[in-house]
Amino acid sequence: MEKSFVSQIADIDGDFAQWYTDVVVKTKLVDYGPVKGTMVIRPYGYAIWENIQNEFNRRFRENGYENAYFPLLIPMSFMTKEAEHVEGFAPEVAVVTHAGGEKLAEPLCVRPTSETIIGTMFGKWVESWRDLPLRMNQWANVMRWEKTTRPFLRTSEFLWQEGHSVFATAEEAEAETLKMLAVYKEFAKTCLAMPVLTGKKTEKEKFAGAVATYGMEAMMHDGKSLQSGTSHYLGQNFSKAFDIKFTDKDGTQKYGYTMSFGVSTRLIGAIIMTHGDNRGLVLPPVVAPVQVVIVPIASKKEGVLENCRALETRLRKAGIRVIVDDSDNSPGWKFNEWEMKGVPVRIELGPRDIEAGKMTVSRRDGYEKTEYALADAETTVAALLREISESLYERAKRRMEERIVSAETLQELLDGVNGGSFVRAGWCGDRACEDKVKEFAQATSRVACKEHTACKCVACGKKAKTTLYFARAY
Amino acid sequence: MEKSFVSQIADIDGDFAQWYTDVVVKTKLVDYGPVKGTMVIRPYGYAIWENIQNEFNRRFRENGYENAYFPLLIPMSFMTKEAEHVEGFAPEVAVVTHAGGEKLAEPLCVRPTSETIIGTMFGKWVESWRDLPLRMNQWANVMRWEKTTRPFLRTSEFLWQEGHSVFATAEEAEAETLKMLAVYKEFAKTCLAMPVLTGKKTEKEKFAGAVATYGMEAMMHDGKSLQSGTSHYLGQNFSKAFDIKFTDKDGTQKYGYTMSFGVSTRLIGAIIMTHGDNRGLVLPPVVAPVQVVIVPIASKKEGVLENCRALETRLRKAGIRVIVDDSDNSPGWKFNEWEMKGVPVRIELGPRDIEAGKMTVSRRDGYEKTEYALADAETTVAALLREISESLYERAKRRMEERIVSAETLQELLDGVNGGSFVRAGWCGDRACEDKVKEFAQATSRVACKEHTACKCVACGKKAKTTLYFARAY
Repeated sequence: MEKSFVSQIADIDGDFAQWYTDVVVKTKLVDYGPVKGTMVIRPYGYAIWENIQNEFNRRFRENGYENAYFPLLIPMSFMTKEAEHVEGFAPEVAVVTHAGGEKLAEPLCVRPTSETIIGTMFGKWVESWRDLPLRMNQWANVMRWEKTTRPFLRTSEFLWQEGHSVFATAEEAEAETLKMLAVYKEFAKTCLAMPVLTGKKTEKEKFAGAVATYGMEAMMHDGKSLQSGTSHYLGQNFSKAFDIKFTDKDGTQKYGYTMSFGVSTRLIGAIIMTHGDNRGLVLPPVVAPVQVVIVPIASKKEGVLENCRALETRLRKAGIRVIVDDSDNSPGWKFNEWEMKGVPVRIELGPRDIEAGKMTVSRRDGYEKTEYALADAETTVAALLREISESLYERAKRRMEERIVSAETLQELLDGVNGGSFVRAGWCGDRACEDKVKEFAQATSRVACKEHTACKCVACGKKAKTTLYFARAY
Repeated sequence: MEKSFVSQIADIDGDFAQWYTDVVVKTKLVDYGPVKGTMVIRPYGYAIWENIQNEFNRRFRENGYENAYFPLLIPMSFMTKEAEHVEGFAPEVAVVTHAGGEKLAEPLCVRPTSETIIGTMFGKWVESWRDLPLRMNQWANVMRWEKTTRPFLRTSEFLWQEGHSVFATAEEAEAETLKMLAVYKEFAKTCLAMPVLTGKKTEKEKFAGAVATYGMEAMMHDGKSLQSGTSHYLGQNFSKAFDIKFTDKDGTQKYGYTMSFGVSTRLIGAIIMTHGDNRGLVLPPVVAPVQVVIVPIASKKEGVLENCRALETRLRKAGIRVIVDDSDNSPGWKFNEWEMKGVPVRIELGPRDIEAGKMTVSRRDGYEKTEYALADAETTVAALLREISESLYERAKRRMEERIVSAETLQELLDGVNGGSFVRAGWCGDRACEDKVKEFAQATSRVACKEHTACKCVACGKKAKTTLYFARAY
């Protein structure tokens, strides 16, 4: 019985891909949609997304962003106004050709991202320097037709947030690009307990239409990298294409400078593959739908269920997301189920605990059972949730740091990624050398590394311009 | 100067359609999207929607609903599984025929509603009576290609919530249909200060594929009706089409009974047209993005701005959405602007107020300026917001009740709707008579009326089966 759940999940080190599929489906985070490449986000998964949204909404608001909603369908002609942009997105776009029983005069794209349509509206709204900076954020579904898909990581439709802003100067727009990248990094640490590497992407890896893209990359359990968020400095590329002009203080007309940034439901995949283990999910407390599960022991005994309910009420009042599992299943079955579902704290409460004024607590991050006084439950649990978040972060950070290696040759780089590491290596700046790494080691450049300086390009041996992190990536 | 804003808005009784357009655009609730029939929901409008979402999320949760997310694109073949459903929606559907650079093997609909795709997933998830009732809600964008569009009221894309549930018995599903209709009605009263008529729709007006549709109808300023929410009892129509079967306690396989219900961004249009006046918006306090604006008087005088900020902080701590307008505009200009934007409470704070420990308060629902003690600001303002909500509701209710008339002939019915009334009239039950009313009076049946019993059908004079509310409608 104790093994019933665990045995349903493939071994995390034996077959990580199968482990992932088992975990996301069996914990009811997600299911496969009927159209190839689509997903249904089930309540347990969607609740994580809602917690992510709430945490971001507060941060965006503090940074001057207001939420708005822009149309799903974008005229094909808008996409083509920025040459690089259309080249990058056209191959992935889904197109509406018929509507209302008729063929449309112009085909409409289902948004793969909204720079073009938001740019059009910003062009209409921005008139004077007084209108700047202009900052907006949108929570929306977007569509990118992908050949190989996996729930959360790569699906034809996904949910995301996209922030868009306009500034009077290049300096301000560039500073905002880095500021929002920093917001992402802080969020990843505080809310997802996830350490990330942040830095500039190469020309090859940047957003189609950007002057520069900055990304945050996280190391998954198998040593592969997951791009978890990006922030783009767009210069005047979109303001010129969409006529975002303002009258400056000196009375002259100028084009604004724009930037954009986004994270998606991919973050849920990142959480799973950063913290999960052979028992299933391990959810970071800040975004866990259920932070605490109370399991009654000998629940038929007088007063047990009442005491569980009373504790639930107390914890809920303290702002903790808590449930009592009063189902007919055995305690052992419940332990397994909630461990698989990744609930950070489990409290067992039985007649003996109650008599002694105690509760028996287990942490999902692996420590032994501990007894605490029932009287201090609110402060104890709040402190435990913080501790668990910090310990998950430290553990993931240690793992990442231990698995970053340096390489001076392609063979060393290949050995590094084969061993599940991120590899720091020098790069001369030529696209050909980046392509050579991809071919030789099936690894791509993730972000620039500022902490380390390599002398020679790992591919051609010429003088290095930049040091990059290379990795296999999702 | 004082007149500058008001003069931008058409007269509400002279040209209501233009008044509406002026108000939604000039208060920056919304803008027109580049594709015909689409809208951009700007931050001030979107904030109303977020408040509506929060209020509903609490109510849905209390009624056992969990949020989830289902795919945007639905295979055309799903739509055709329920014959009436496809007949009703096919003419309005937008169709994706190409994606990823290729023609799709099967065209995909952009969801006009999600019964078919959610039904498919429910069919997969429901196995036993233990899985029932199953209740889910989704917040999503939907698309219905409309010929005549107006922001919020009728747009090709809109945002909505759709609740879907499955029960073991017809009785439970029918009871849920009425229960969620009651939730809508209570929400309309409490959060939108909007009185509504609720009742069953005729066969002609029901949802395509439903056994029965119940609607809530609200009377707009011009006496026309706005369908503001619907709840559908779907019987086994969708469970049979999508194989939603369960093993009952007796071991036999049975089809479930389903229901669904939805409200949309139309509610924002309903608020505007229920409460607005010649000065612009009048927003119900519960969903107003800004509940209180503090306008500093003689703001350059020492201590004025500081006292405004201190009051803002106090009110914000009390959970009130408040801002200080510290812009360079004159107080008169600010008064007009915030009146146009419909902010429920305005507080003026100048040197004399501060010295006397007072604040000068104006209510957007039309009362004179009143002085209150600054010391009690939190309780005073909270009470005022409640009072304003109640007085808006009472005013709208009185207006609606005064404008409901009865008719025994088609001419009386025509006179009624021409006079901006809802008309109660008997109906024999024949579709032909409903059509005749439409032709003669350009009015449609809204919902059944239970409070009143007519003897004869208003169109044919035969014995009436039902009494209906007829009205012109948006």
